[in-house]
Amino acid sequence: MVADLTTSLTYKDKTVEISRSRPTTIIGERINPTGRKKVLEALQKGEFDIVRKDALDQVAAGAHVLDVNAGVPGADEPELLEKVMRTVMDVVDVPLSIDTANPEALRRALEIYPGKALINSVNGEERSLNTVLPLAKEFGAAVIGLCMDDQGIPDTAEKRLAVAARIIERAGRYDIGPEDIIIDPLALALGADSNAGIIALRTIELVVQQFGCNISMGASNISYGLPDRKYVNSAFMAMAIYAGLSCPITNPLVTEIQTAILAADLALGRDDYAMRWIKAYRKRQKDAEANQG
Amino acid sequence: MVADLTTSLTYKDKTVEISRSRPTTIIGERINPTGRKKVLEALQKGEFDIVRKDALDQVAAGAHVLDVNAGVPGADEPELLEKVMRTVMDVVDVPLSIDTANPEALRRALEIYPGKALINSVNGEERSLNTVLPLAKEFGAAVIGLCMDDQGIPDTAEKRLAVAARIIERAGRYDIGPEDIIIDPLALALGADSNAGIIALRTIELVVQQFGCNISMGASNISYGLPDRKYVNSAFMAMAIYAGLSCPITNPLVTEIQTAILAADLALGRDDYAMRWIKAYRKRQKDAEANQG
Repeated sequence: MVADLTTSLTYKDKTVEISRSRPTTIIGERINPTGRKKVLEALQKGEFDIVRKDALDQVAAGAHVLDVNAGVPGADEPELLEKVMRTVMDVVDVPLSIDTANPEALRRALEIYPGKALINSVNGEERSLNTVLPLAKEFGAAVIGLCMDDQGIPDTAEKRLAVAARIIERAGRYDIGPEDIIIDPLALALGADSNAGIIALRTIELVVQQFGCNISMGASNISYGLPDRKYVNSAFMAMAIYAGLSCPITNPLVTEIQTAILAADLALGRDDYAMRWIKAYRKRQKDAEANQG
Repeated sequence: MVADLTTSLTYKDKTVEISRSRPTTIIGERINPTGRKKVLEALQKGEFDIVRKDALDQVAAGAHVLDVNAGVPGADEPELLEKVMRTVMDVVDVPLSIDTANPEALRRALEIYPGKALINSVNGEERSLNTVLPLAKEFGAAVIGLCMDDQGIPDTAEKRLAVAARIIERAGRYDIGPEDIIIDPLALALGADSNAGIIALRTIELVVQQFGCNISMGASNISYGLPDRKYVNSAFMAMAIYAGLSCPITNPLVTEIQTAILAADLALGRDDYAMRWIKAYRKRQKDAEANQG
């Protein structure tokens, strides 16, 4: 068991500190055309109103960091990602998670970003390690490390831990410390493998025990193909936070997910006098009244 | 780390096996006048329709065991508990958890119960150990052991583990094995102590590691005095199941709680092909249609 690490992200003079001794950091996932036709069509047309709205709505709903993805098939990703980022930075002042597999887009995004960004993501493949880690070092960014490599996604927690260890070791060669590597254990669909959840949870535990790293995860894959997904995602989110998840990538606009995160923090003693819980409750009440009135 | 134990309860020819390798066992909490004015008034008048309805509704909603409490101030508890139990046994065929602090009521209940019951509860107080354990031995019942003693409820997980250890050790002197002791870590209100949740969760982990016992817990105290309690209870329930809770005492009629339990089982690989999840989803759909039509 090693000490819990703190990852600091900044945007201009604003700092977000990610740590299991603090309330869970929410990385808003919605600025992403993957699986969202409306966003895809808007970005294809060069219309950014929906990006503006997604940025504002997510921050109002409690997102502390926004993930920004501009992966539109056929588009000039470096240019589009810069435009989307500038749009977001015009309306909100939270740190960004730069979500791209395109090295040129990543470099350009890091060049225009005023602060310490989060890169989403590196993985255990040689090509990824050799491309992303030097950029993280050059721009002083933190990085999400996915537990997969050239062989795909390992089918046991122990093998995923080994991938995490390799990413952390390789980052160390660039003088990037484990406090700047956020491990994503990868949660696959329970519908395809009933052990998908337990493998992800166990990976979180092992990585936390061995490295004390912060942990990110998208918690919605898990329920792919199942009915009433939000309930599955909520329970899984609460369990994952207990296991050590500190910065989920999720949609804070889904009440069930947001309340699961806030309730998990509350139950784990990370919400003094329940002040955050009560504040969120009042906001839900107010929103409900506004919707009726 | 010891192996997980299985607790078998029976009612006539029906057996319920409690274990972390199976789906979570739900002990229905509603047949209890404490804090339920309607039930209290009905029992005072000797009316049992509400008991019948609570028994049927809870089993229909997924309860595997029913807790039965007849603690009405001023009433003849041994007689009333027998009547309530007979009423329940007339309409459903699930094992019962006999919930009383009255030794005479407990003996009479065990005498009329056709099977291996669960006694709710013994604790670490000398008087409790000396009264309840001999009855458990005489009637071959399993027992819930509360982590409290003459000094009250300990304020650390380690001290609660010590109480659990003492209960298990004392039960052993009567040849009652740890598979027949279900430990309740006691979850207190977060509103009074923000560490209440983490102490309960940590106690579960310690007891499971050291003894492999099954774990019971009421998961609603935790949210006492807070708004939107069902969301807090649901997240806490999911986390507690991950920690090792195997037979919560709860209200299966609250959709959020029931879905949290089913979703936790699903995410932990205890629901093959998501069959239980999908069945419960269809039932919710049907119930919703029935309510509209």
